[in-house]
Amino acid sequence: MPIGVFDSGIGGLTVVKRLSSVLPRESIVYFGDTARVPYGSKSNATVIDYSIQNTNFLLKKNVKAIVVACNTASSIAIPELRKKFTVPVIGVILPGADMAYKETRNGRIGVIGTRATINNNAYSNAIKEIDNKIEIFEKACPLFVPIAEEGWTHHRATYEIAEEYLKELREKKIDTLVLGCTHYPLLADVIQEIIGKDVKLIDSGIATAEVVRNEINRIGLETNSAVPGNLDLYVSDIPTTFKQVAELFLGRTINEVVKVDIEELHKI
Amino acid sequence: MPIGVFDSGIGGLTVVKRLSSVLPRESIVYFGDTARVPYGSKSNATVIDYSIQNTNFLLKKNVKAIVVACNTASSIAIPELRKKFTVPVIGVILPGADMAYKETRNGRIGVIGTRATINNNAYSNAIKEIDNKIEIFEKACPLFVPIAEEGWTHHRATYEIAEEYLKELREKKIDTLVLGCTHYPLLADVIQEIIGKDVKLIDSGIATAEVVRNEINRIGLETNSAVPGNLDLYVSDIPTTFKQVAELFLGRTINEVVKVDIEELHKI
Repeated sequence: MPIGVFDSGIGGLTVVKRLSSVLPRESIVYFGDTARVPYGSKSNATVIDYSIQNTNFLLKKNVKAIVVACNTASSIAIPELRKKFTVPVIGVILPGADMAYKETRNGRIGVIGTRATINNNAYSNAIKEIDNKIEIFEKACPLFVPIAEEGWTHHRATYEIAEEYLKELREKKIDTLVLGCTHYPLLADVIQEIIGKDVKLIDSGIATAEVVRNEINRIGLETNSAVPGNLDLYVSDIPTTFKQVAELFLGRTINEVVKVDIEELHKI
Repeated sequence: MPIGVFDSGIGGLTVVKRLSSVLPRESIVYFGDTARVPYGSKSNATVIDYSIQNTNFLLKKNVKAIVVACNTASSIAIPELRKKFTVPVIGVILPGADMAYKETRNGRIGVIGTRATINNNAYSNAIKEIDNKIEIFEKACPLFVPIAEEGWTHHRATYEIAEEYLKELREKKIDTLVLGCTHYPLLADVIQEIIGKDVKLIDSGIATAEVVRNEINRIGLETNSAVPGNLDLYVSDIPTTFKQVAELFLGRTINEVVKVDIEELHKI
């Protein structure tokens, strides 16, 4: 049985990259909702609705666990998904929050993400639940997503944008910064340079992959395959630059990608 | 009877601004498909499908003409809309192409837009149909949309992005540049500075408003109201920053905006 992963688009492929590295023999079915991306600017009701549709789609592929590889959907839809489905549902928020808490020495953590993730205080609430004495400083960075998709990982414009978004956080003396959006690991070099080299960056994908491994062991559904797992890619639309951007995010070449009719998602 | 205007999101409000200025007594019903924005990265089949749904929605509001205030939808869906509906359908491509042709002196025209508009050679084909000796130089500028929505109309990052996108066009000795996306008039100052002050910028919204006036006169459906027309705003989702960005694009304050259920659009 494969692991199911969904995201609003292609950003979740950075999480798939981490999953493949931690669990190389597990097969993965990925659904990217590219016809309805971005979720970050949509209402909570819409994000929950789409997340249920995406989960239903993956369950039809017989997956043993659902990874919500999208910070927006993780922050908004997970309680509803856990209420509605019996399969384990793992988001990227709690693993990232947990790792940030373990890393900080001075108790001052920064969080960057889409407007939806930041407005929902998703990481902030998760970290406060672990230890409410931690001080958290949040900042929405909406332009990081399109600039990562443009592949401008080290462009002068990227430095200017990062400077604008991160200058407030730099003054807060944080020692840990959560990359609260699956696109942001692509911009890690620029973010590290602007925020300062002593600040530890948290890539939620790495933390999430560890949690998925533990969860699969717990339910006793590890694969017993001896060969590398497959990656099946489904998307609700195939943008013109899909292959190029997907390979940038995944860190390797891809072969086939299957388009799912959005009308079918509504009916599942 | 009002004029119906649709766009993939809020960019079309720059066209509404021009329409209100040219036809101040006409009422306008605007539908922004904010739940499914952007169209620029979607396949042709999806853009046509959504455009038909949006037109059906506006026709239920008893509109006398449809303005496709979205370059992507104008470049892809208009033939299909004209085949399917009897009401006049006016896009932004032909009026913009026509105005660019009238403005150029040296026969060298630049066109900037989303990837979909540029990949479809929409303006290029439209200008070539008027005069195939015109030389046209096109460039997709995907980051201009999110940077306009962020309101960074004069930011250093905006200059860096414009420099990256426009440096090729600057070497082509164009004397006219079509702003082939409804968001771009917001960035006109930066674009003008980077491309050079002698290059004439073409705002399709202005050209489109003139064509709409002529078309309404032709079918004899000018309003006989003596007072300013209403603007009714419908969207398929209300993003957190909607009011702020919509007012930036429209150039005035807005009151009510009504959310339309996307499921209903599928059923119309």
